[in-house]
Amino acid sequence: MPSLAEARALDAADPIAGYRKQFALPPGVIYLDGNSLGALPLGTASRLGEVIRREWGEGLVRSWNSADWIGMPRRLGAMIAPLIGAEADEVIACDSTSVNLFKLIAAALAMRPGRKVVLSEPGNFPTDLYLIAGLEAQGFAERRLAPAEELEGAFDDSVAVLLLTHVHYKTGAMHDMARLTRAAHEAGALVLWDLSHSAGAMPVDLNGCEADLAVGCGYKYFNGGPGAPAFAYVAKRHQAALQQPLTGWMGHAAPFAFRDDYVSAPGIEQLLAGTPPILGLAALEEGVRLIAEIGVERLAAKSRALSQFLRAAVAEVAPDLACVSPEDPQPRGSHLSFRHPEAYAIAQALIAHGVIPDFREPDVLRLGLAPAYLRFDDCWHAAQALGEVLASGEWERPEFKTRATVT
Amino acid sequence: MPSLAEARALDAADPIAGYRKQFALPPGVIYLDGNSLGALPLGTASRLGEVIRREWGEGLVRSWNSADWIGMPRRLGAMIAPLIGAEADEVIACDSTSVNLFKLIAAALAMRPGRKVVLSEPGNFPTDLYLIAGLEAQGFAERRLAPAEELEGAFDDSVAVLLLTHVHYKTGAMHDMARLTRAAHEAGALVLWDLSHSAGAMPVDLNGCEADLAVGCGYKYFNGGPGAPAFAYVAKRHQAALQQPLTGWMGHAAPFAFRDDYVSAPGIEQLLAGTPPILGLAALEEGVRLIAEIGVERLAAKSRALSQFLRAAVAEVAPDLACVSPEDPQPRGSHLSFRHPEAYAIAQALIAHGVIPDFREPDVLRLGLAPAYLRFDDCWHAAQALGEVLASGEWERPEFKTRATVT
Repeated sequence: MPSLAEARALDAADPIAGYRKQFALPPGVIYLDGNSLGALPLGTASRLGEVIRREWGEGLVRSWNSADWIGMPRRLGAMIAPLIGAEADEVIACDSTSVNLFKLIAAALAMRPGRKVVLSEPGNFPTDLYLIAGLEAQGFAERRLAPAEELEGAFDDSVAVLLLTHVHYKTGAMHDMARLTRAAHEAGALVLWDLSHSAGAMPVDLNGCEADLAVGCGYKYFNGGPGAPAFAYVAKRHQAALQQPLTGWMGHAAPFAFRDDYVSAPGIEQLLAGTPPILGLAALEEGVRLIAEIGVERLAAKSRALSQFLRAAVAEVAPDLACVSPEDPQPRGSHLSFRHPEAYAIAQALIAHGVIPDFREPDVLRLGLAPAYLRFDDCWHAAQALGEVLASGEWERPEFKTRATVT
Repeated sequence: MPSLAEARALDAADPIAGYRKQFALPPGVIYLDGNSLGALPLGTASRLGEVIRREWGEGLVRSWNSADWIGMPRRLGAMIAPLIGAEADEVIACDSTSVNLFKLIAAALAMRPGRKVVLSEPGNFPTDLYLIAGLEAQGFAERRLAPAEELEGAFDDSVAVLLLTHVHYKTGAMHDMARLTRAAHEAGALVLWDLSHSAGAMPVDLNGCEADLAVGCGYKYFNGGPGAPAFAYVAKRHQAALQQPLTGWMGHAAPFAFRDDYVSAPGIEQLLAGTPPILGLAALEEGVRLIAEIGVERLAAKSRALSQFLRAAVAEVAPDLACVSPEDPQPRGSHLSFRHPEAYAIAQALIAHGVIPDFREPDVLRLGLAPAYLRFDDCWHAAQALGEVLASGEWERPEFKTRATVT
């Protein structure tokens, strides 16, 4: 039976507990939404001040060279690479996850001429499915959706690429990357993994699984700030043949030669399109540096312990609340989701208690467990707050039922 | 004959001279590259500190609503709109200029079925030409280039869209937007204007010219910081039929409904793809606010006076240096370019004198005149430094001839 004493003992024994103080966490708040927007690393505020005042304000245009702004997309890529099982020159930080999905779905289709099907699962994160629509309207792609357990039977020789989110944004279920990558390859298809809900919290081994392509998000477990730049991975064996349609000047073999004809850069840089967003990249660099220092293995171990503890604590205070996340911690990401027809109002009532969860349409209460800064103590208190909200029925108050625009 | 006394008199009479103190300009530096990277507005550093510490650090994910992060792309678009002759709901801030070019070239091709030609001029800014290449490789587009004076004769019924940069990045020559837009329409084509070198320094009247589509840059005359978000314009009459291929979740009619099928937002929001980059947008907002306050008409008048003065001052100290920018100030943007086979080394020698110009391959020395913070006094001193560098031959020193990576 989980208790506050047990929570405190777990925190005391937590080898990475000390990293919490490197994040700006507002007093009185238990933050269970680090998988929507990661918390602010304290170093980021001072780094950004430096980039703005010294590099931009004083260095001006010279900082493209002197502060190596121009090298940031590659430098960040090389920092992210070991955290997702890739080599330094297989990853680059640029654009948004959505834009990178477009590049890589299109590139996958170009690598499998004669095949048009992009295979995914219903209920995948919307932007993954929506980017197929753009290519479908252009006549390149054909979307095929199959539930997770039927994916392997859904391959045929028209499938160009399997596109999946490694950890599901609602349920937290983690796909077996090795098995599904193998299934795609056996059918002559490629695989494109969206790592948005796994990178930085869960071990990912792209090269160990022989993955082909991947994208991921900078503003969740990498704590890069709201709308941070994303990243993209292309296995080295595919880089020479890669052809992606967003052929902007930064992906040119010689961008500063200012020639009229496009010749793509030989390596991962060909994924660049426009001028790199330096403020966003600098913030992302601080977040990634911290996560790399803590280490993915330690983060994943703590994440699993946190979610086991929280699951048990919630089961005790709200035994009827249905958990939709896998019970086995191995195939599970770093969040737990619960289903309730009034999940929206319950989330609002929790916020009034100082606990910030996430709501996902139509009925999911999502509790994100960012292991870099969340404590067992937080999980215990969050469970108590959830128990109170449910027991008191306070979520029925009209102000909790009024929908805000977003999140 | 331009003199320091005349420069000082012009500065004393300059109605917008007082705005210079709202920018961080390093002492001892004359900055003639505001058209590559605009200077830092002093308000930006404190605003970003606020966004980072308060909105992200304390507000966390709640700031998407409470700080209206989610509304920033539209809000910025509405601020930029009057500066380019557009309505508030015709402009949106998002992605990079390159990515926006891709969206709008593709959208123009979709609006002109049966036509594949994208007409532009040789020597247009590379990313404009390169983005055609990506669509060419996909089989949608066919690139046709004609020199500026032959553009009107290059239309036929295969031309879908005329794509031009309003002010040329090298020569500073400004296209006649009204005349070329009319020519495109007479041939049944659309027009897509790249405003990167005009917006924020020169009057632009998109709706007055009946333009169809436009893109522009946030980090030049809008002073949004290195790699700032860009903007895109779609005339209201085209918005209902618009179809762009980067169909990410933020361009969905109901992004937070998390449905499987893509339905585009009805208005300009359909140009959004991924999650908005808040740090970059906040910095851009400060820059645009300042430029809007000064006013484009006053900026353009000062820009023309600055370039007339600088041109005369350079002619006096270096009468043989060929100016490649138009002599008439009306069809000219906010920079002056000079041609010299050793332009790179001359630029480096000028930097050693505290004057930061720009070099553009293969032989162009570009002097940008950002009217919001440049003084006539600066122009006079820059001309003297250029005269000294040329007269002394100091640019021949080996350290000035060694090429750095970029800019």
